[in-house]
Amino acid sequence: MSSDSLLPPRVLAVASHVVSGNVGNKVAVFVLQSLGFDVAALNTVQFSNHTGYRQWTGTRATAQEITDLYNGLKQSYLDDFDMMLTGYIPGAEGVTAVGTIAKGLKEKFQNSPGKFFWVLDPVMGDNGKLYVAPEVVPAYKALLPYADLILPNQFEAEQLSDVKIVDMDSLTEAIQVLHDKFNIPHIIITSVSFTTPGHPPSHLTVIGSTMTSDRKARPFKIVFPSIDCYFCGTGDMFGALITSRIREAANAVPGLSSRASWLSDDDVAATDLPLARAAEKVLASMHQVLANTRDAMPEVMERTWALLRPEDRNDETKAHYVKSKAAELQLVTNLDSLRTPSISFSATKI
Amino acid sequence: MSSDSLLPPRVLAVASHVVSGNVGNKVAVFVLQSLGFDVAALNTVQFSNHTGYRQWTGTRATAQEITDLYNGLKQSYLDDFDMMLTGYIPGAEGVTAVGTIAKGLKEKFQNSPGKFFWVLDPVMGDNGKLYVAPEVVPAYKALLPYADLILPNQFEAEQLSDVKIVDMDSLTEAIQVLHDKFNIPHIIITSVSFTTPGHPPSHLTVIGSTMTSDRKARPFKIVFPSIDCYFCGTGDMFGALITSRIREAANAVPGLSSRASWLSDDDVAATDLPLARAAEKVLASMHQVLANTRDAMPEVMERTWALLRPEDRNDETKAHYVKSKAAELQLVTNLDSLRTPSISFSATKI
Repeated sequence: MSSDSLLPPRVLAVASHVVSGNVGNKVAVFVLQSLGFDVAALNTVQFSNHTGYRQWTGTRATAQEITDLYNGLKQSYLDDFDMMLTGYIPGAEGVTAVGTIAKGLKEKFQNSPGKFFWVLDPVMGDNGKLYVAPEVVPAYKALLPYADLILPNQFEAEQLSDVKIVDMDSLTEAIQVLHDKFNIPHIIITSVSFTTPGHPPSHLTVIGSTMTSDRKARPFKIVFPSIDCYFCGTGDMFGALITSRIREAANAVPGLSSRASWLSDDDVAATDLPLARAAEKVLASMHQVLANTRDAMPEVMERTWALLRPEDRNDETKAHYVKSKAAELQLVTNLDSLRTPSISFSATKI
Repeated sequence: MSSDSLLPPRVLAVASHVVSGNVGNKVAVFVLQSLGFDVAALNTVQFSNHTGYRQWTGTRATAQEITDLYNGLKQSYLDDFDMMLTGYIPGAEGVTAVGTIAKGLKEKFQNSPGKFFWVLDPVMGDNGKLYVAPEVVPAYKALLPYADLILPNQFEAEQLSDVKIVDMDSLTEAIQVLHDKFNIPHIIITSVSFTTPGHPPSHLTVIGSTMTSDRKARPFKIVFPSIDCYFCGTGDMFGALITSRIREAANAVPGLSSRASWLSDDDVAATDLPLARAAEKVLASMHQVLANTRDAMPEVMERTWALLRPEDRNDETKAHYVKSKAAELQLVTNLDSLRTPSISFSATKI
């Protein structure tokens, strides 16, 4: 880590690109740049808009194209990355190609512990359903031992751990399996669908853990009020923010950032982990951005309806497009929320 | 123009994308986002790095792919743009496809004067040489009547006006031809290669003009100290900044932003034009960003050389890669220079 340098840290962000709206790299690149990263953006698709609209145009990059782009960076010495963040990748071959990039970077910096850190968001599905081909699951499993931090949602954690998650006990079991079996240092389960005991259903829970030297989980949870809207791109915003904040939190602990995977001493309690500090800050930013997005929705909807004919308001399909557009994350008007969130949520023990 | 709205203005940015480094949309998107625009980014290529390195990998979008992406936006009512900024487009067919998008937007908003404004950077060549196919020149000429502001360099202004530019007189003649023949409201010649009388060669000159109602040029110049380095992406940074600043300057004049092409009254002097105000602010930002980029170059070079073998320092080809990387614009560390430049240059009469 070049924390003594005035130069921005370099991150490779691999995810989808949409022309209009905010998901994938369209979120990650801006958020990381706003937080001071020099971002190399490798776009795995270019679509007109996100697929939640139910219609879109555009093209996917093949695994070969992804590999070619990366080889292009390598040949000109542009592969000196401090971090890597990977999101949606189309198909198992693409996942494997991106994994090869990450493995290469791990190997390149193997003599500089802590220099390189990979944040892997294993985008596969949600709410009990895969939205990628079944062979993507084993492709991700094969890469897990190389990741420093993974960000599955509850369903993805089930797919990777083969533990059915129904409550907090089975969730912590799944985390323990992921630490044990794949040697993954840091894990955050970004959304859980069961109700957390002691909290009303209007709250959401994020669970995190950094393993000890003998791969024991140190789980913490952060509970925060949910905003009752369906947003896309929240996972991508989480990934970009945690990439920045985990680095900041590791840098705040003397010596930690030059230790492999920024693994805390065994006597650090779950709620004192840098990962907990990082996640707290991420959720504060996200809550503010989502609240502001919700507040802007009526104006965005009215502006869009003005482009249509009055009778279109009764057309459910068109209403879906108008609503999808209004639910796009408001990012550029929320720089302060991203950089210096003013609210806070606290990690607690499980 | 929705200046009474809290929502960010929407701009469609059409240009190249590079994974690493800062040219094309990689510059324009971040600069426009930093200045508060909701940016739709249509990437005309995805390359590993800019071509100044002399080696790169990646793919170009076909004209059909560009059209498909735009049709994707249209079908979901995502084409409600306030502005459009177009930069590098691969090939004459691509230029024509992008022109069709711009014409469509002009037509869509024809009953709302001033609602939509197209900034066209006719990227074709520099220093007496085309770096696009010859048929790109007539393709751009056919689009000029639809542009609100064009940003050619001296060579591109020659190609479009068919006037050989050797001094200030022939330059102003070329501007007059562009106003007259193509009805282009605003023109900025972003770089001139002759020495401006009364200024040492260490200074650069930008020339701008907004036509009167009878298409008379109102030329002004801004002279500013040059920074002795070869940077890529400066034209793209200029384009993004002027897109934001011309809107700001037009909004500052009561009623102007609801007039077609934001054309000032005939009695406004050249140096009082909103275009002059905008260009002054753009050059202030650019000068600060370029000075900071130059100052960071030695550290970037050292960091990259550390990845190579000591004997590589004598290899001219490798030195070129290392230098190209060090000359990449430093953007994320220069947010304040982009948003609130602290220096100033003044427009003067020609």
